[in-house]
Amino acid sequence: MNDRPIGVFDSGVGGLTVFRALCAALPDEPMVYLGDTARVPYGTRSPSTVERYSMEAQDFLNQHRIKLLVVACNSASSVALDSLVRESDVPVVGVIAPGARRAVEQTRSGVIGVIGTRATVASGAYERAIQALRSDARVESRACPLFVPLAEEGWTDNDVARATAETYLGELREAGVDTLVMGCTHYPLLREVIGATMGAGVELVDSAEAVADEVRGLLADEAAPPLPAGASARRDLFITDEPAPFMRMAERILGPEATRIEQVRLDEY
Amino acid sequence: MNDRPIGVFDSGVGGLTVFRALCAALPDEPMVYLGDTARVPYGTRSPSTVERYSMEAQDFLNQHRIKLLVVACNSASSVALDSLVRESDVPVVGVIAPGARRAVEQTRSGVIGVIGTRATVASGAYERAIQALRSDARVESRACPLFVPLAEEGWTDNDVARATAETYLGELREAGVDTLVMGCTHYPLLREVIGATMGAGVELVDSAEAVADEVRGLLADEAAPPLPAGASARRDLFITDEPAPFMRMAERILGPEATRIEQVRLDEY
Repeated sequence: MNDRPIGVFDSGVGGLTVFRALCAALPDEPMVYLGDTARVPYGTRSPSTVERYSMEAQDFLNQHRIKLLVVACNSASSVALDSLVRESDVPVVGVIAPGARRAVEQTRSGVIGVIGTRATVASGAYERAIQALRSDARVESRACPLFVPLAEEGWTDNDVARATAETYLGELREAGVDTLVMGCTHYPLLREVIGATMGAGVELVDSAEAVADEVRGLLADEAAPPLPAGASARRDLFITDEPAPFMRMAERILGPEATRIEQVRLDEY
Repeated sequence: MNDRPIGVFDSGVGGLTVFRALCAALPDEPMVYLGDTARVPYGTRSPSTVERYSMEAQDFLNQHRIKLLVVACNSASSVALDSLVRESDVPVVGVIAPGARRAVEQTRSGVIGVIGTRATVASGAYERAIQALRSDARVESRACPLFVPLAEEGWTDNDVARATAETYLGELREAGVDTLVMGCTHYPLLREVIGATMGAGVELVDSAEAVADEVRGLLADEAAPPLPAGASARRDLFITDEPAPFMRMAERILGPEATRIEQVRLDEY
């Protein structure tokens, strides 16, 4: 069991930030990443479609005999996690619960902001997870659909990025949040402009590290001994559109960790 | 033959601007629209994936026994038209050639700007079509990936829209274009900010009307008599994600023309 890979699934390239955190936390664990680049983004789609795509991704990763499934995509974690857990023989870790836990640990005022895609915000998944941990927390949410295309355009520090951040985040700042969950894997790429807009007193929560902690804890709980240090761990990446644009982003985020990239189809499974 | 519908295919909701122009030009013709809302946008995907999705859409519309296929999506017209024509028993009309013709008719200076998605601009399809009609025309192209999410966010007249338009279009304006092809079905929704940024001396070309003229000409060339005026023409809309968000946009663009909306799957065909 313990030489089987961890499977990481995302709608596209953003989940590589989670993948990178997992690689850093668990350098000897083999890992398989699937990015559904031919159908990204998920955050603008209906729950039923996100669920269907997520189940297809799960089927694909199960064929790689994964021992644990990480759902790096916030939109998929928000609307499809229950279905994925129900269909899975292995543990499933989403990004919502670890991000919520980190936010509750960090807030002092109890007023927590959550930003994400339309699908994530409409689901209310972060509110439920935060209030399950701290019932008196107040959660202020805002969908920020333009942040993903801004990050993909590389406009992270220009007039458009600043005006967009002010339009989306002005009300959250006025509402007095002291902790802001970046509830989409792309948003850490805009960390500086988001931080500057919110002000120095606001902590930004990036789920990637929280997820890596959770996965490390889960594996430590298992009876299986850790892998021998220095074993050459597999880092296989699968995507559903052509590799070229993804590879540029993958090299930027992962460096030489990406040992293999292959294009696959999910709708045939 | 002449009571068979015209098929219109787009990656999502933007092609309804073309559908509307066709309905206005040919009020008595039955029409079937397919929007691949579960996989939109096409403009950020690779040519091979856009081609595969386009062929699936064609297969679907052929099952509705269409007499003519209109490819309303600029990205699909740019990279998949040859394949669609090769596989089709009926005429296929894309948006590139009619838009290029309109631009060549309107330009005085011979310097024509083209804006579109990454896929459309990378294909060079507009340049080829324009220079085939006027070999001394100079074409200045620019991909504007943020215009689609801006239009879908409804941010058509705020600071972000103006700063984005200035960033994308400033160089085209300085290059002296006197005619600008809006080479994406979403862009007419940003017509005002695009026009204000380019200046009063620049003509904006919206392919929708050019396509409607082309289709009317094609049907008039056929031997079949026109349909009796006032026949209640079918207006059937099919989409691949849930109808609710699409219906709001469809009603905004089409009014009561939308007589039926149904969700379908393309990857089963």
